[in-house]
Amino acid sequence: MAEPSSNPVPPPADTPTEAGEEGPSKKALKKAEAKAKKEAEKAKRAAERAAAAGASASSAQLEDLAKENYGQETHTTKLDADATEITLKTLGDEHVGKTVELRAWVQNSRMQGAKMVFVELREFGNWTIQGIVAANPEQTPVSRQMVKWVGSTNDESFCVVQGTVQKPLEPVKSCRVSNYELHITKLFVVASAPAMLGMTLAAANRPIANFSDEEVPVEDGVEKLSIAASSEPTGVPAASMLTHLDNIIMHKRAPVQQAIADIRMEVKDLFRSYLKSHGFKEFEPPCLIGAASEGGSNVFGLKYFGTEAFLAQSPQFYKQYEIAGGRKRVYCVGPVFRAENSNTPRHMTEFTGLDLEMEIKKDYTEVLHMLEGVLLYIFRGIKERCAEEIELVRSVYPSEEFLLPEAGKEVRLTFAEGQKLLREEGPEEYRNVSDDEDMSTPQEKALGRLIREKYNTDFYVLDKFPEGARPFYAKEDPANPSLTNAYDFFMRGQEILSGGQRINDPTELEARLRKKGVDPSSQGIKEYVQVFRDAGVPPHGGGGIGLDRVVAWYLNLPSVHLAAYYPRTPKRLLP
Amino acid sequence: MAEPSSNPVPPPADTPTEAGEEGPSKKALKKAEAKAKKEAEKAKRAAERAAAAGASASSAQLEDLAKENYGQETHTTKLDADATEITLKTLGDEHVGKTVELRAWVQNSRMQGAKMVFVELREFGNWTIQGIVAANPEQTPVSRQMVKWVGSTNDESFCVVQGTVQKPLEPVKSCRVSNYELHITKLFVVASAPAMLGMTLAAANRPIANFSDEEVPVEDGVEKLSIAASSEPTGVPAASMLTHLDNIIMHKRAPVQQAIADIRMEVKDLFRSYLKSHGFKEFEPPCLIGAASEGGSNVFGLKYFGTEAFLAQSPQFYKQYEIAGGRKRVYCVGPVFRAENSNTPRHMTEFTGLDLEMEIKKDYTEVLHMLEGVLLYIFRGIKERCAEEIELVRSVYPSEEFLLPEAGKEVRLTFAEGQKLLREEGPEEYRNVSDDEDMSTPQEKALGRLIREKYNTDFYVLDKFPEGARPFYAKEDPANPSLTNAYDFFMRGQEILSGGQRINDPTELEARLRKKGVDPSSQGIKEYVQVFRDAGVPPHGGGGIGLDRVVAWYLNLPSVHLAAYYPRTPKRLLP
Repeated sequence: MAEPSSNPVPPPADTPTEAGEEGPSKKALKKAEAKAKKEAEKAKRAAERAAAAGASASSAQLEDLAKENYGQETHTTKLDADATEITLKTLGDEHVGKTVELRAWVQNSRMQGAKMVFVELREFGNWTIQGIVAANPEQTPVSRQMVKWVGSTNDESFCVVQGTVQKPLEPVKSCRVSNYELHITKLFVVASAPAMLGMTLAAANRPIANFSDEEVPVEDGVEKLSIAASSEPTGVPAASMLTHLDNIIMHKRAPVQQAIADIRMEVKDLFRSYLKSHGFKEFEPPCLIGAASEGGSNVFGLKYFGTEAFLAQSPQFYKQYEIAGGRKRVYCVGPVFRAENSNTPRHMTEFTGLDLEMEIKKDYTEVLHMLEGVLLYIFRGIKERCAEEIELVRSVYPSEEFLLPEAGKEVRLTFAEGQKLLREEGPEEYRNVSDDEDMSTPQEKALGRLIREKYNTDFYVLDKFPEGARPFYAKEDPANPSLTNAYDFFMRGQEILSGGQRINDPTELEARLRKKGVDPSSQGIKEYVQVFRDAGVPPHGGGGIGLDRVVAWYLNLPSVHLAAYYPRTPKRLLP
Repeated sequence: MAEPSSNPVPPPADTPTEAGEEGPSKKALKKAEAKAKKEAEKAKRAAERAAAAGASASSAQLEDLAKENYGQETHTTKLDADATEITLKTLGDEHVGKTVELRAWVQNSRMQGAKMVFVELREFGNWTIQGIVAANPEQTPVSRQMVKWVGSTNDESFCVVQGTVQKPLEPVKSCRVSNYELHITKLFVVASAPAMLGMTLAAANRPIANFSDEEVPVEDGVEKLSIAASSEPTGVPAASMLTHLDNIIMHKRAPVQQAIADIRMEVKDLFRSYLKSHGFKEFEPPCLIGAASEGGSNVFGLKYFGTEAFLAQSPQFYKQYEIAGGRKRVYCVGPVFRAENSNTPRHMTEFTGLDLEMEIKKDYTEVLHMLEGVLLYIFRGIKERCAEEIELVRSVYPSEEFLLPEAGKEVRLTFAEGQKLLREEGPEEYRNVSDDEDMSTPQEKALGRLIREKYNTDFYVLDKFPEGARPFYAKEDPANPSLTNAYDFFMRGQEILSGGQRINDPTELEARLRKKGVDPSSQGIKEYVQVFRDAGVPPHGGGGIGLDRVVAWYLNLPSVHLAAYYPRTPKRLLP
């Protein structure tokens, strides 16, 4: 808006300017009167202009010329219909000087005196841009009132803005889009955030300091947390997992969680695309099953129309039914349930399984190699597709590069070889392993470190597990029945997959069921065994991968709960 | 094998041949003796050969020269290591004359006298080929014993065969591979089927005659079924759905079920690929939830570590949390649960939902068009990708072509327009519709027939449902609050999708909850409303598609149970 005139007051209108000593002629008088009237009118208009301008200059008691350019969005909100809708990810030089429209969150706003405010806008995918709202009424319809209003917008409100894309004098370091800024001419809040957030975005993006399911004591409004992360120099306090879950929206908006979610999605996608290209067919196993067939403990039961149903602990039987039903190679991705009262960073009561099953032609190692193949494809795939996301996660949860074996040098030890390595070279306290029992978690982790040192890989297979450590459907090694054709896969010393060849002969299956103390005629088992009698079932094998664990251990996150969208634990079903 | 010698008996060895009247010289005698001995040995060997040959000719009391070429597969089974592994789908002229190896099911075998048997082999994907086992010992190591054994192999046994690919004199009409046949030289049964199958493949491939959950009376070993399908001229009796489920493996092996499974898989795949290309992110909602938040009835409850959990009836809240959490566009594919005691061909207690949710920029029809887009993509996609499978299904379950609207001529009626059409042009008995209530299933079907006649499409949308017919999260039409910005999608007059805009303002949401008689502070609801207070949530909408229904109604199957892998009904949790 123009500066007010420097001499707002006109000369007095009534001062005679053309009179001599003699009295003025009638004509001259009329002429003077007309002139004075004209002058008076001119002066009046000037005074009005000056008053208006003066008021605006002081603080706008009168009119806000930008009042239609900001506020809460309503059905009367007017946006320029010809503005180009943009996304920050695809913003380019072709947009410079153009009027654009963006829907985004107010990440923060910083007043720069009364005439300007910086407003950082965040869009999907952790994209941010610097917005500038500057009162300069001559050029843009932005008023000081608008500046003030935008500056008072609550962080995390969702808004629609219009403005002009410009190149900043210097790159904007604080934003992901650093080479453009947005000179905002309109800003409407579509959905307001509260003045006080339950958890700020900065706090949500800090590493989680406590994964206990117990409430964390609060002191001076800050949680007392168990690890030192809370005292980092950023000054932003870290929060507990419980606080994150109680503020699930801010938890999800944190860039680190967005990145983890993106990586998780790619893992699923890579799993499916690899198997599809290898002739696998997708199917869905049921969650509701009629009998607790894979073992009575750790299974959720529920009332079901006068009888009882159970939640599937794995798709094991159904994968095998698909093979028996002639599907050759199948996979499924879905929830599995464990009623296990384990409150550890590795356990959840519901998690996502990536499962496959396939016919075996000659040897069970065909399955082992397929599983190895799909996992290596996933690891290499996310490294390529999610490089930025992985880096972002590492900026919050530091981790060493996940080491992969060179092609052709995959590490496949037998269980016995693994134990030997641990006995001979492992830390003293972990050497006490038993030949026919599975190792403990700390022993497995110690072995993982040994293998990393020796073979330079964080991914490896332990094969030929002892018979006693595997379920009734595991096929015993024909050459040595104290072992099985079954294996576990590990990432950074933690198990992510169990698999192996299954028994496909009903007589052999019944014998092994009895050996394992399971009655072959018990409910759920009887029907399972019958399938192998009903019609010839080819030899087959497979494996089940825990999606949450793959994501968590690849990134070396402190808990699988961070890799899940809505972690379910014995103590937590919300949100 | 060579024919036995025509003169097996040698001349008597002791007859002197070179003696005169005079006694023979000593030398002559010795010579004669040696000659006789030689002759005798020669005769003995000939007799042995003759005996062996004679026995083989009669019925092999002695030796079976092909005995290593057939039988039950064991670890000593010897296969030619240099045989080319084939799949029937990719069999071509380059294989003619080559020794190949195939793993397949014995679909049936037919003896052609004692020296030859035809054996039809079936591989994954409904591929079949004619195999010939012919006793012709001079050329191939096939014996009559082998022919007999192969002829007695039980149908549906799984076997590995080796043989030579040849072109038949005439195309083999009974097999999908009609231009090649397999001259089998080795056949080993890998897994035996029983002599008497619970349901034959032919019966499994007949249309299911009865979908009742009640047992069907059996008369003379054949089920008494409610529809006439059982008396078709093929002579193969149809079976009830219960019989199919009791013989799940043969049910699955039936070509019609293989085809349905393939189509279902493609629907999922098309859903995901379309949404991925439109910027949607996949996520997994939980199945276990802490409160029966979408309405207390029809929800399964279960004991959960001293408290109660429920099975999610839809991913509704969690899709919205993802949008609130900044994910912009999301989809999920997974199980949903309804504790509804509905025993109809349209209902299951567990089914697969295809769900999406997205930010709305200007108008809720953005979501409607996205849903329409993904469904049209699916319909066009399966028509192209699954043409053979669709034809196969139609050969068992005849159906008319599923009609699609021309591009740009999609049929979107308002609920009121649909009702008007039914009132004015529908059958008398279905005209009695109420303005503020949903239509009945028969009314919907009648409307579907009207729309097919009028607009030449089996796929259409009814929009602007009355407020009373939609759940508490449905956004009312700002221009007319007796309506909602919500819609249903239909296939052949049957609903497959419900969706619409959701309320994103917490105050508006609380008001509508109260209007619907739901306490905004009740468990599960309170946390849901809080999400919209926690941080600004953009306007959004979405929809949920029933995968089983899309498959079933596209193919016009008599029941969704046929489209599911393991249908769950109030009376059935097995297999």
